[in-house]
Amino acid sequence: MTTLQNDTFLKALMRQPTDYTPVWMMRQAGRYLPEYRESRKTAGSFMQLCQSPSFATEVTLQPLDRYPLDAAILFSDILTVPDAMGLGLYFTEGEGPKFERTASDEATIRALSVPDMAKLQYVFDAVSSIRKALNGRVPLIGFSGSPWTLATYMVEGKGGTDFLNTKKLMYARPELLHHILEVNAQTIIQYLNAQIAAGAQAVMIFDSWGGALSHNAYTEFSLKYMQKIVAGLTKTAQGQTVPSIVFTKGGALWLEAQAAIGANALGLDWTVDIGQARARVGHQVALQGNMDPAILLSTPEAIEKEVASILASYGHGHGHVFNLGHGITQWTPPENAAAFIAAVHKHSKQYHA
Amino acid sequence: MTTLQNDTFLKALMRQPTDYTPVWMMRQAGRYLPEYRESRKTAGSFMQLCQSPSFATEVTLQPLDRYPLDAAILFSDILTVPDAMGLGLYFTEGEGPKFERTASDEATIRALSVPDMAKLQYVFDAVSSIRKALNGRVPLIGFSGSPWTLATYMVEGKGGTDFLNTKKLMYARPELLHHILEVNAQTIIQYLNAQIAAGAQAVMIFDSWGGALSHNAYTEFSLKYMQKIVAGLTKTAQGQTVPSIVFTKGGALWLEAQAAIGANALGLDWTVDIGQARARVGHQVALQGNMDPAILLSTPEAIEKEVASILASYGHGHGHVFNLGHGITQWTPPENAAAFIAAVHKHSKQYHA
Repeated sequence: MTTLQNDTFLKALMRQPTDYTPVWMMRQAGRYLPEYRESRKTAGSFMQLCQSPSFATEVTLQPLDRYPLDAAILFSDILTVPDAMGLGLYFTEGEGPKFERTASDEATIRALSVPDMAKLQYVFDAVSSIRKALNGRVPLIGFSGSPWTLATYMVEGKGGTDFLNTKKLMYARPELLHHILEVNAQTIIQYLNAQIAAGAQAVMIFDSWGGALSHNAYTEFSLKYMQKIVAGLTKTAQGQTVPSIVFTKGGALWLEAQAAIGANALGLDWTVDIGQARARVGHQVALQGNMDPAILLSTPEAIEKEVASILASYGHGHGHVFNLGHGITQWTPPENAAAFIAAVHKHSKQYHA
Repeated sequence: MTTLQNDTFLKALMRQPTDYTPVWMMRQAGRYLPEYRESRKTAGSFMQLCQSPSFATEVTLQPLDRYPLDAAILFSDILTVPDAMGLGLYFTEGEGPKFERTASDEATIRALSVPDMAKLQYVFDAVSSIRKALNGRVPLIGFSGSPWTLATYMVEGKGGTDFLNTKKLMYARPELLHHILEVNAQTIIQYLNAQIAAGAQAVMIFDSWGGALSHNAYTEFSLKYMQKIVAGLTKTAQGQTVPSIVFTKGGALWLEAQAAIGANALGLDWTVDIGQARARVGHQVALQGNMDPAILLSTPEAIEKEVASILASYGHGHGHVFNLGHGITQWTPPENAAAFIAAVHKHSKQYHA
């Protein structure tokens, strides 16, 4: 294995000293980059980008060639997992991902099982290929959706905001939803461990829809299963611990509970003041976040001001990975992303002195 | 004026003793009721229902004729206000409300001003008519959108989830957004005071999209303007204080700040545990909420269990108005709404002994 030239991100996740605050952006390989749009056109579709290790490698590295980012993230999608379970993922222009079949009736739900990981070999091949291409520049992050978030797509057959079918199942037949969540958790443990075996140096669990739940339902139907996953993660072949990040979008009310599940870091969206979040979780975890990606549509001056404000709120000391509070939007001018990353590096040094 | 026969709701808002926990449901006059769908068909459209005082009265009273609710709420829409400002509200089937014109360029924004309240006379006429028809059965709630929430529709021209244009304006040209918000706040003060003059006995401010903001932006661009409105509310012609409720959906992180703006009560969505919310706001305000409306799609048993759990979490003492954490969905079986209301009345008595 090549030596890692920039381990700032991994150190920050482990709350170890660094010279500055590392930064990466969720969805950094994405449509705001003209070179990404070009690759996607060549590949044919989003899923063809994901399923081809060479295309996935190409687009993963694009933002790193433009910006001094401190981490790379596997180019993939959280919905590869329910697709491997046989639900038939497809994308329609302008409407987002959909599934041909849903897991909403008892018979289909009871028939769900952990899929053969061979069906996801293209993901693990992409991890190996990206890791090789990175050649030690920065660490590579692997990822998965959370059991609850994947379950919403599996029950609804598509993305959503109110999740009425999933919640109806949750309250009328909780044992059926628990079955889906248990299958998802066991699948994700295998999936993330195979990414680690292929070369992922950190892993992140995206609980994109956990924030739609009530306090009690979040604990029982989302957090508990993420805790199971974190407990099931393996070390690298070289015996190194792979830091884990858990991110519940809209979940900042529940940070204390999240901090107790054993993950190394928590993702934060922009609704919470990061200084208050730090005070609430104490020394248990690192924090990753949390600028509103909409600010990247404004001006370099406004971006720099907000970055400085977030850094000041976090304050002195280690354990902060700068990021947006959600994926970068496709309408972001690439020069504004550059201003964002430069501002983090420039203004953060004083807090690590 | 007729004597109010059931003042449980008003007393709970003022944190005075009551025999049980009063309950009403956001959007209780709505599509889940077959009689509402019938009225709407007769009227022609949603806006024709709103603009006709007799239709508005008819549908406002429909849920009260079915259920022992403790409050009525004016049948109207938060977008009557930007419509009166000349933006041209219209509804397209399945797509939600839209505006013909947006307030997104500097000239249009600078030209915005408080509209003549005569353009909203149909709303005040509806309030008078409903109040007369209620004949003292229960109190009548008037309402408005928040300045921020209305601004998102005015800038975007439609509803949304990411509000990128509004946020771009906020960060690149904050003084322009502040102009919109100031016009909205002054308009809403006149609008709510005219509803009070027409007979509204409590008022609620719906900050439906405040939860999309960062901690700092929420304080500066939403909460500050709601505080201004609360401070500008008048008493009734009889000299009675009209209790106010402020509800920021997705805003439970910021309850402490909300509790300090002078409103009598705060609305809660279902993400926060109501007992924890009560501990955070202390004796400053009453709390209104907070069952996930999705639970109404399950079973009477599950509904009763959740109602009992929320009541137990709030605990003994006064100052709780039971409600859903958001509007009742159109797919709710009417008998489940009945089970919800009965469960609140049945299980709450023990906490008021």
